[in-house]
Amino acid sequence: MGKKNKQFVEKITAMEDDFAQWYTDVVKQADLVDYGQVRGTMIIKPYGYAIWENIKDELDRKIKQTGHSNVAFPMFIPESLLQKEKDHVVGFAPEVAWVTHGGDEELAERIAVRPTSEVLFCDYYSKNIHSYRDLPKLYNQWANVVRWEKTTRPFLRSSEFHWQEGHTAHATDEDAAKETDRMLGVYADLVENYLAVPVLKGRKTDKEKFAGAKYTLTIESLMHDGKALQSGTSHHFGSGFAEAFDITYLDENGESQFAHQTSWGLSTRIMGALIMVHGDNRGLVVPPRIAPTQAMIVPIAQHKEGVLDKAYTLRDQLQDLVRVDIDGSDKMPGWKFNEYEMKGIPVRIEMGPKDIEKEQVVLVRRDTGEKEFVALHDLEARLPLLLEEIQSNLYQKALDHRNEMTSVATNMEEFKQTLDQKGGFIKAMWCGDVACEEKIKEETTATSRCIPFEQETVADTCVCCGKEAKEMVYWAKAY
Amino acid sequence: MGKKNKQFVEKITAMEDDFAQWYTDVVKQADLVDYGQVRGTMIIKPYGYAIWENIKDELDRKIKQTGHSNVAFPMFIPESLLQKEKDHVVGFAPEVAWVTHGGDEELAERIAVRPTSEVLFCDYYSKNIHSYRDLPKLYNQWANVVRWEKTTRPFLRSSEFHWQEGHTAHATDEDAAKETDRMLGVYADLVENYLAVPVLKGRKTDKEKFAGAKYTLTIESLMHDGKALQSGTSHHFGSGFAEAFDITYLDENGESQFAHQTSWGLSTRIMGALIMVHGDNRGLVVPPRIAPTQAMIVPIAQHKEGVLDKAYTLRDQLQDLVRVDIDGSDKMPGWKFNEYEMKGIPVRIEMGPKDIEKEQVVLVRRDTGEKEFVALHDLEARLPLLLEEIQSNLYQKALDHRNEMTSVATNMEEFKQTLDQKGGFIKAMWCGDVACEEKIKEETTATSRCIPFEQETVADTCVCCGKEAKEMVYWAKAY
Repeated sequence: MGKKNKQFVEKITAMEDDFAQWYTDVVKQADLVDYGQVRGTMIIKPYGYAIWENIKDELDRKIKQTGHSNVAFPMFIPESLLQKEKDHVVGFAPEVAWVTHGGDEELAERIAVRPTSEVLFCDYYSKNIHSYRDLPKLYNQWANVVRWEKTTRPFLRSSEFHWQEGHTAHATDEDAAKETDRMLGVYADLVENYLAVPVLKGRKTDKEKFAGAKYTLTIESLMHDGKALQSGTSHHFGSGFAEAFDITYLDENGESQFAHQTSWGLSTRIMGALIMVHGDNRGLVVPPRIAPTQAMIVPIAQHKEGVLDKAYTLRDQLQDLVRVDIDGSDKMPGWKFNEYEMKGIPVRIEMGPKDIEKEQVVLVRRDTGEKEFVALHDLEARLPLLLEEIQSNLYQKALDHRNEMTSVATNMEEFKQTLDQKGGFIKAMWCGDVACEEKIKEETTATSRCIPFEQETVADTCVCCGKEAKEMVYWAKAY
Repeated sequence: MGKKNKQFVEKITAMEDDFAQWYTDVVKQADLVDYGQVRGTMIIKPYGYAIWENIKDELDRKIKQTGHSNVAFPMFIPESLLQKEKDHVVGFAPEVAWVTHGGDEELAERIAVRPTSEVLFCDYYSKNIHSYRDLPKLYNQWANVVRWEKTTRPFLRSSEFHWQEGHTAHATDEDAAKETDRMLGVYADLVENYLAVPVLKGRKTDKEKFAGAKYTLTIESLMHDGKALQSGTSHHFGSGFAEAFDITYLDENGESQFAHQTSWGLSTRIMGALIMVHGDNRGLVVPPRIAPTQAMIVPIAQHKEGVLDKAYTLRDQLQDLVRVDIDGSDKMPGWKFNEYEMKGIPVRIEMGPKDIEKEQVVLVRRDTGEKEFVALHDLEARLPLLLEEIQSNLYQKALDHRNEMTSVATNMEEFKQTLDQKGGFIKAMWCGDVACEEKIKEETTATSRCIPFEQETVADTCVCCGKEAKEMVYWAKAY
């Protein structure tokens, strides 16, 4: 084999053998990330960033459509400001990276690199909200934040990550509640319809809610290995932060009222869901709607006269229709097949001398591996349809998997057995007592993922203590 | 006056009286920024961010069109990595914000919050470039960086600022030189054709070049007060960083070669140019091509029947044509006029009962204040043309101002006199000796802005020492 085959794609670990290693192999081999020099930081490489940029652009569009404005707040928070809301500081201080020196000068007060920006927005709102006319404030920012984590993994838990964080202020608790709901809906729409990842929508228990929130809404998705991933959260703060930061306004009757706030965030963590929901033993599988390249043309026997010309002509012809690229390099077709399967490009278009003769191409689906011969004159009609079929199929497959991996448990034995043997989501009733929640976590390592909006009564008594049940909860081991 | 007039726009300082105060007033009153809690940081508010986002989107498009990929590198740099290139660390270390603690743990090695990211990209390239086939690498990132400055001003010099930084690696010095040129061209195109700010293109002297660069290219613009602003720079590194970081590749003959690199950046500083080139005593003036709102509809006597309806219909009719908004609030028209003049919205569209009767609107230009009556059926043709006229006029006015404020000096007396009485750019010959450059700075506070690509011979001898001149240099006091 010649020099050009040296770069032949390295094999990845089979997900059945070692799911964690499979994940690490995929993020490296599909060229998504590399490790940064500082522990737990990541370099998002061109291909990984192009996928994130598509997610970002789509979400940004939705955030603006719902009336929000983008802003940029500083990454630095004085320590005293971080300490203003007591639950919040307890939740975040242990993970803060602290700046103590500027140049040669030691700072009088330590500065936190933002782990999240509630206190900065609160400080701003306290100075800029005076009247009911100033409300609502609907702000969002795309930012990098830092949480000094002990164990890190690319996308899933990195010291620095990228996200958007929305921070809003409203006149009434009800307005804030509506906003909290609305933004959860925006996330669910994005994740289900663009990332093809089905989600459960619900409320976090008090134990699992955001530090400082009245309540937290969440979308939860299920990975291929049966573990759950929190995929986006929307927090209702009530007037808690407003009281700590003195964010008040004069209402229409001239009376002073506290503002009611929300925040909501979706981060590069969602890239982890994308990988672990759709990926397989040949690598990544990217849903067409967010794929940077939806179709890759691979010329076959490209040294033969006319093949490359025809292939480039095809590219030119398709490029206003779909996001298409061509690999006209002198690498072997087999190398190219592996490479673009690893990268999860939805459709491969093969075109060789025989196809040119027959005026056709071969379409190969990444999700199923199915081949299809399509006449050139049908291609412009067929290709967009095929992409939509792939998008639907990925969603349906993930939904089937989640359904298959969702069980009911009515007592702890059943709970443990199911979790051990099968994993996945466990639907079980809960009395509402944090002691039971803690006991379940201690005995099984599963946590409450959400109290779903769509409630069912799968039993009358709490799965843990046997007392009267209040709500059904989804439980799972989680990332 | 009723409650609603309490928010009447505060006056701003006249620029003739105190230009620095005028600047501060405009950035506050036009709702561009607010101050962050940590010294020298800024909050970019919705309106300021919307302008920056338009600049960013346009530049991002150009960066991608020229074949570059976006990536995201970490914000953290270990101290040892920052120290690898000697000139570079000397240039940046004094301005670094240092992270020393993660949570409760003191770090073994201090971490710099990136002041710029050359060393991170170099470290990555040293591990990921092996063969000539890996070149060129054409990466860019949109990022926040921190420089611990003593004196700060919003946009112009802030502790944290936003920018894009391109980092590229090439096989040959010539390829890197071409890239350096090309990206300066991209910046010049953006700043001249979208921000309507004329620029001088040239090379920095060795004294003024980037720490670690072989040479630095720059675009320089002239503010209303006669001071210059460096508006974008593109650096050729030669193989300096490659040698320090061991970035080598095997060429087609199997011989090891150093890579040749560039970097180039344009930051939120450019917002300062926008303000100080086009602004006037009524506030900001935003060029139409980057204005978030190009035309603002202000209904007149809107309590009269049909006025608001007609105004909203007009908005709906225009919104696919231009970026149009309407202020249908119950504030007085006079308040609205002031507000949108302060924000620099290019065109105001007035529509009252008389206009409706005559089937016309009044267009008021922000740049000249001229009014124009336009029949409704001509509006869709007229408005886009008017916006282009405003765009051209802003550029021409700025160019006329720069030409007027550009003088020639052939000796130091002339130099000082011109600088004192008039300011602006001074074209003067230079012997190439850094001693003369330093002396000029010491005696006049003016610095060499650039050695322009378009050379003229305005004298035979150096303006400072009288020895034989090598090049013409533009000098100015600068931000």
